[in-house]
Amino acid sequence: MNYCSDCGAPVSLLVPPGDNRERHVCSACGTIHYQNPKVVVGCIPEWEDKILLCRRAIQPRQGLWTLPAGFMERGETTREGAARETLEEANARVEVGQLYSLFNLPHIDQVYMLFRARLLDLEFSPGEESLEVALFEEGEIPWELLAFQTVRETLKLYFRDRPGGHRGLYSGDIVREWGADEPRVRVTIHEERG
Amino acid sequence: MNYCSDCGAPVSLLVPPGDNRERHVCSACGTIHYQNPKVVVGCIPEWEDKILLCRRAIQPRQGLWTLPAGFMERGETTREGAARETLEEANARVEVGQLYSLFNLPHIDQVYMLFRARLLDLEFSPGEESLEVALFEEGEIPWELLAFQTVRETLKLYFRDRPGGHRGLYSGDIVREWGADEPRVRVTIHEERG
Repeated sequence: MNYCSDCGAPVSLLVPPGDNRERHVCSACGTIHYQNPKVVVGCIPEWEDKILLCRRAIQPRQGLWTLPAGFMERGETTREGAARETLEEANARVEVGQLYSLFNLPHIDQVYMLFRARLLDLEFSPGEESLEVALFEEGEIPWELLAFQTVRETLKLYFRDRPGGHRGLYSGDIVREWGADEPRVRVTIHEERG
Repeated sequence: MNYCSDCGAPVSLLVPPGDNRERHVCSACGTIHYQNPKVVVGCIPEWEDKILLCRRAIQPRQGLWTLPAGFMERGETTREGAARETLEEANARVEVGQLYSLFNLPHIDQVYMLFRARLLDLEFSPGEESLEVALFEEGEIPWELLAFQTVRETLKLYFRDRPGGHRGLYSGDIVREWGADEPRVRVTIHEERG
């Protein structure tokens, strides 16, 4: 951020009075421009013992498989966003069920929320951001070709639990740490029930 | 938003190719400036059968009582943010427990997440944004002087469930609807467990 989006004057990075973090502050009108994490919402669309995955037509991770998910938009709830993303990426209609996993990714300022969802029909097809959309049984999941760690961790939990029918919420942190010479990813899972 | 925060040129409101919503797009460098909901994180700090509330020193709802909560910052997890807000607003140290309530407020583009938390000591005091900080038993909660509906709904659920010890997650939508002449608020609660 270089310029004030309100008045167009240059901004400076400084700690405003009463605050404890650097913010972009306008040198002319004084507006403080806060930047905050974004929410990514999506579904685990279920049909019998299969789930629906999309192969990405766009970067990042073009060509790899993912659950339908994307940035939550203004004016919608998390469930509405999850259903919208599923419709946009897979032309698939779902009834959104319980929140299944919530992942923090503080190194990229994202909070992922993935909901279980019941696919309402089989009339799905690739949306603009997908190359292919298909149903997968557990044994068919392309584990080595999944686009995002949030999706991999969610699907691992989902298939591990399926025989017993766990329906609680998992939350987790996917934290990038710098080791001797390369970043490592640390995954922590909390089970959010009593 | 009037100007591009990258290059300072005027922005236009238009639907970018491949998108289906109006965005602020720079007329010079073409940058698309997305705007997304924000996450508010906070705690229900518990000490024996009491919970901690803060009386707000700032707008909005100055002088009213609330749970310690605020906007999630970049580089932190939801739990870290909830603990930080509790420290900032109440100078209170907590061990953050389970996610208790998640509220969507689509009319103001916020997602609230409130965690149960164990107060580690009684050395709390008002932070810069608080006038007072105090512990309340159920019968002492100032229901008519609570600052936010998210806090009111969360505390109603919390005290309703306390005898039985519910520890699951509630999620809800607080939606402002326009009726004949005034906005009404509709609250929907989901119980996020099997």
